[in-house]
Amino acid sequence: MSLRHFLTTQDYSRAEIDALLEQAAAFKRSPRGQQLAGKSVALLFFNPSMRTRTSFELGAFHLGGHAIVLSPGKDAWPIEFRPNVVMDGEAEEHIAEVARVLSRYVDLIAVRAFPKFQDWSVDREDAVIKAFAQYATVPVINMETITHPCQELAHALALKERFGDLTGRKYVLTWTYHPKPLNTAVANSALLIATKMGMDVTLLCPTPDYVLDKRYMAFGEQNAKENGGSLKVSHNIEEAYRGADVVYAKSWGALPFFGRWENEKPIRDAHKHFIVDEAKMALTNNGVFSHCLPLRRNIKATDAVMDSPACIAIDEAENRLHVQKAVMASLIDQR
Amino acid sequence: MSLRHFLTTQDYSRAEIDALLEQAAAFKRSPRGQQLAGKSVALLFFNPSMRTRTSFELGAFHLGGHAIVLSPGKDAWPIEFRPNVVMDGEAEEHIAEVARVLSRYVDLIAVRAFPKFQDWSVDREDAVIKAFAQYATVPVINMETITHPCQELAHALALKERFGDLTGRKYVLTWTYHPKPLNTAVANSALLIATKMGMDVTLLCPTPDYVLDKRYMAFGEQNAKENGGSLKVSHNIEEAYRGADVVYAKSWGALPFFGRWENEKPIRDAHKHFIVDEAKMALTNNGVFSHCLPLRRNIKATDAVMDSPACIAIDEAENRLHVQKAVMASLIDQR
Amino acid sequence: MSLRHFLTTQDYSRAEIDALLEQAAAFKRSPRGQQLAGKSVALLFFNPSMRTRTSFELGAFHLGGHAIVLSPGKDAWPIEFRPNVVMDGEAEEHIAEVARVLSRYVDLIAVRAFPKFQDWSVDREDAVIKAFAQYATVPVINMETITHPCQELAHALALKERFGDLTGRKYVLTWTYHPKPLNTAVANSALLIATKMGMDVTLLCPTPDYVLDKRYMAFGEQNAKENGGSLKVSHNIEEAYRGADVVYAKSWGALPFFGRWENEKPIRDAHKHFIVDEAKMALTNNGVFSHCLPLRRNIKATDAVMDSPACIAIDEAENRLHVQKAVMASLIDQR
Repeated sequence: MSLRHFLTTQDYSRAEIDALLEQAAAFKRSPRGQQLAGKSVALLFFNPSMRTRTSFELGAFHLGGHAIVLSPGKDAWPIEFRPNVVMDGEAEEHIAEVARVLSRYVDLIAVRAFPKFQDWSVDREDAVIKAFAQYATVPVINMETITHPCQELAHALALKERFGDLTGRKYVLTWTYHPKPLNTAVANSALLIATKMGMDVTLLCPTPDYVLDKRYMAFGEQNAKENGGSLKVSHNIEEAYRGADVVYAKSWGALPFFGRWENEKPIRDAHKHFIVDEAKMALTNNGVFSHCLPLRRNIKATDAVMDSPACIAIDEAENRLHVQKAVMASLIDQR
Repeated sequence: MSLRHFLTTQDYSRAEIDALLEQAAAFKRSPRGQQLAGKSVALLFFNPSMRTRTSFELGAFHLGGHAIVLSPGKDAWPIEFRPNVVMDGEAEEHIAEVARVLSRYVDLIAVRAFPKFQDWSVDREDAVIKAFAQYATVPVINMETITHPCQELAHALALKERFGDLTGRKYVLTWTYHPKPLNTAVANSALLIATKMGMDVTLLCPTPDYVLDKRYMAFGEQNAKENGGSLKVSHNIEEAYRGADVVYAKSWGALPFFGRWENEKPIRDAHKHFIVDEAKMALTNNGVFSHCLPLRRNIKATDAVMDSPACIAIDEAENRLHVQKAVMASLIDQR
Repeated sequence: MSLRHFLTTQDYSRAEIDALLEQAAAFKRSPRGQQLAGKSVALLFFNPSMRTRTSFELGAFHLGGHAIVLSPGKDAWPIEFRPNVVMDGEAEEHIAEVARVLSRYVDLIAVRAFPKFQDWSVDREDAVIKAFAQYATVPVINMETITHPCQELAHALALKERFGDLTGRKYVLTWTYHPKPLNTAVANSALLIATKMGMDVTLLCPTPDYVLDKRYMAFGEQNAKENGGSLKVSHNIEEAYRGADVVYAKSWGALPFFGRWENEKPIRDAHKHFIVDEAKMALTNNGVFSHCLPLRRNIKATDAVMDSPACIAIDEAENRLHVQKAVMASLIDQR
């Protein structure tokens, strides 16, 4: 089967990632095109979105195509993903039919499907998007599941706009407090792309419980080895920030506490001081700050940091539009 | 009033239906066109949808037009359909204004409005779409109310793709179990189109209670007479399947139990064996199987049947796109 | 800062309003164009809509552009509008980021944000749309907050279609009963545009409690002075209707009772006779009737009035499409 999807950047070589980023930069300079003329993409949101939906919908429009926005379980039927089951529950339709029929209608299928936050051993299998990729006969794009590869590209493009070559830059991925336990997807993705770009990456988090899934730690190690960077874990704020070129913030729930969040809450609550503030940024090498958004101001980062020239979060968000056009154009092109 | 709608295939002659199917086949070969250039269609969903919405929205796009998706009562105001009432209830707006204003904005209005399942004598009047047709000054399209004429055309096209001329083919419409009492629309429609195409039609259902509304039975008889086929009712699974060229499955609630579904439930539950399986399909004349989707696997049909080459449900679903383009293009053309 | 928004007609001179109406009339004669070719508009609905959404979405399409429909808090994150707060509540994102990111994606941002109906001193600040205008780097359009300037233009165009020059026409804005306390936005807007067009305006309402906010009464006085008309308040139905050229109806909640609606209810309930009926219309100078829609028939106006040739509510609704195209084209043009 030669059909190529965009499920994770780990399926793409460094050269392929660089080519997507170059195409995205070209779209940023010259936004219109006919790469998707008469073509369509289905955007399936199992979870809500504003930036993702807007940027994909506009990206398709800019290239002559059309996006269909669907919210299964809300304005469409709930879907069954397990094979060989007697469907006597809530689901009215099986992914086999959903993916096959959509593939007859559209040229690309993009899927957002967050973890259920009850059992990480289940969530880490990423069953929803894998089922789409299995049954669809058109390319499938990850709009955030347990990784967020489109955000990775947007982030990398924003960093390249500031730094040019990223090799050897000191990169800190810092956990921050948030009142709820959030998805690890963007954190996993930050590890993947930062190591892929050959940076010296520090994962800063409150305790070993907040280290990310071993799969992504291993991918990070492998990427670092292949691209001349490094990956380490730190629980020391000052050490991690000192001399950093890039501070990337994200909150996430600790995997060992998955499904019993009341036990994690006191630990999280005790680490509100992980907020990104001016004092911490002053330790960096005149570093830039970014975040995938949405961001709770004065919880994850202070107003002063968000409104400073060091903050490139808006550029990163803008870049979602450009990189997704590059991804869609490249996937259409293979067909 | 010469304005023509697409409310039911009974308003269309056999020759007109054949012409729509030919146009649909042409769109299937060559999907793009300018038949709706600059034109728009409002898609009003009083009930949710995935296939219908996607295929109409894409169909408009393929032909240069634009679809507006509206969900009255969800992202728009609830609507009053009765004439001459003092509107002191929930409804904020009368169909007279809704239909007249929409007619000023768009070139076509498509409506999905399911029965309320409380009183069949009310539901069978199909008041919602009739009110749209009464007040609108642009053509109105039925996206499923108590019949589903777009599904009929998609079904007929899929059958013609397999068989060519359908005259004299043995066609079985079989009731199947489903945990909820469902709409009879697709079953009514199957009767209408199968008899219109001149097939020998058997309506297979558990008991006389599951026979369809006398209006559609009578239309079926009349169609059979005019087109050289036949229509009969059977409660014998083996007899019905034996030698069949086409098996079309659908679940529906028994009309005599409308509004008191707890009384029907034990009857329905006693007929789970109406599921379409390999043993039953083996009785057919190497027949094809289809269903309108969504379909609960291993409840209405087994995995083995759904995944067999005999299953043309995906083709039928794809054909929704093509036939709806034909319908929209034909209705626009009259104006 | 030279960026111009469309937040209220008070920011526009009479000559500018006349130019927008002329452009709208031109679009009504010739609906298609390329004024928004490749451009996009985000439609943010904090409150539901049918006409507004349909007319903006179609307007963008007719001019070669694309509208993105977003419902914050429903299919997107809830948003924080206050500056400098610790965001530990429901809101996941600050307007600063929402508006800045959207401004990178789209060329126009249109916002519907109704009052909360709890504290008029808060609602009258119109904080939501002002925050968008403050942070956005593209033009912002008011799709109804505490005024409804698009409705004003549609209303004025419909009146000009009937009367030509409006100077000196007798105009009655009449309160009507409605079971719920409604937004004063359209009433405020009726005052603004009727006085701006130089008409002799009577605000007819049950008691002094129903007089509109002093800000809009003062704008009305000022407009009347500048454009040769007048503004007065009346509680006498017969006096107000007698000799009127235009009757415009709207229901609204009395400002002194804001947030304690149970106290206003008996007053409202005692004035159901403010309904627009044939007897009242017979007092006019063969006047026209209009309403912004949605309208509860036989509550705000009788069937006889709604279905009479005097009713121009459908024309006014249609004009939303044309005037909004004029507004979008004019705002894009400045960039």
